[in-house]
Amino acid sequence: MPSAKTMNFYFDPVSPYAYLASTQLPQLIERTGAQVTCIPVLFAGFLKALGNKGPAEIASKKIHTMKDAVRFAKLYQVPIEGPPEHPFNPLNALRMCCAIEDDEGRLRFASALMKACWGYGNDITDVKVLAAIAKQSRLDDKILVEKMQDPSIKKRLKDNTEEALQQGVFGVPTFQVGDELFWGNDRFDFVEQALAGKDPLDAAQAQRILSRTKL
Amino acid sequence: MPSAKTMNFYFDPVSPYAYLASTQLPQLIERTGAQVTCIPVLFAGFLKALGNKGPAEIASKKIHTMKDAVRFAKLYQVPIEGPPEHPFNPLNALRMCCAIEDDEGRLRFASALMKACWGYGNDITDVKVLAAIAKQSRLDDKILVEKMQDPSIKKRLKDNTEEALQQGVFGVPTFQVGDELFWGNDRFDFVEQALAGKDPLDAAQAQRILSRTKL
Repeated sequence: MPSAKTMNFYFDPVSPYAYLASTQLPQLIERTGAQVTCIPVLFAGFLKALGNKGPAEIASKKIHTMKDAVRFAKLYQVPIEGPPEHPFNPLNALRMCCAIEDDEGRLRFASALMKACWGYGNDITDVKVLAAIAKQSRLDDKILVEKMQDPSIKKRLKDNTEEALQQGVFGVPTFQVGDELFWGNDRFDFVEQALAGKDPLDAAQAQRILSRTKL
Repeated sequence: MPSAKTMNFYFDPVSPYAYLASTQLPQLIERTGAQVTCIPVLFAGFLKALGNKGPAEIASKKIHTMKDAVRFAKLYQVPIEGPPEHPFNPLNALRMCCAIEDDEGRLRFASALMKACWGYGNDITDVKVLAAIAKQSRLDDKILVEKMQDPSIKKRLKDNTEEALQQGVFGVPTFQVGDELFWGNDRFDFVEQALAGKDPLDAAQAQRILSRTKL
């Protein structure tokens, strides 16, 4: 669990909102000085564990999601070409992220690969494409291509996904500041307040409401 | 389908976000001059039709939802006590809304009942509570209590829900401006741009992305 001024960023490149969030992180880091740990997780693993459907699995929600993402890209003034196919298998991309030990390098690569995919339409299921992005991100592409096949790296992605679920993460992108989770690129304002120690949450009130819910 | 400067507001009082949205509508109407038609729909009907789960059906998502709602209430400076129990059966509330023919009266009553429920913790499953809110909203409570039991009113709620699904609505609150749907109290900026004829959507780009998706 990160302390104040540190933040976890749970992502899966399959989500356009994870891409959109990644485009805004540099400015957030610049403004707040926050240290960001980006944590690759398998969104499909969340859906399976929670018996939930992803937005791409419901026709009307898929249409809303893509239009919404295109609107946010305009708002953020970032490119949005979209992947060659969606949903796509993000395992190679996630595993290559998991193979990067250095927090800063992992965030740099994750952001670059989401931009390559969502911003410019590259096929990030292709290991050769991933290797090229790694190289452009000043990482050792040969070592990463080798490491991503390693059982310990495959296990790391599973463990990340499982631990995220245990922390209460159910979607991507999710930001974690201290104990608190913020879901979506549209929650940056709350994230920034939390990083400044000014989370607007009345925790006792939320607890009272939750105590009257049933599941 | 509403024309420019008119807008549909699909809601179910079971959603805290529908309440939160209703608190911001007066200012939106003031700023834009938009004519709002509020359309009662049964959220549970969407979930059933789409094979989807509501946020209250996934423990971690329920916690996030309620905390998020409490944060938005702070941001909007509106009360949030939460209902006596959640989820609750919204049928009586929705049917009484459906029994109000006048658009302005229906929005006034819908907003008042969501404030009574989410803002102040009243039990809006209780017809007596609904009648009191109707009276306070300068509506004929006796006629409404009678009308809400009418088969034609029950059918209206079903028809609203079915027609909303056909329009592509999958959640609440949803705003509709022209053909475009905006889901969530956190999409007011896009809604306002759309009302001003300045929807940031690059529709052709969204269509290109969608053409590369599969379902």
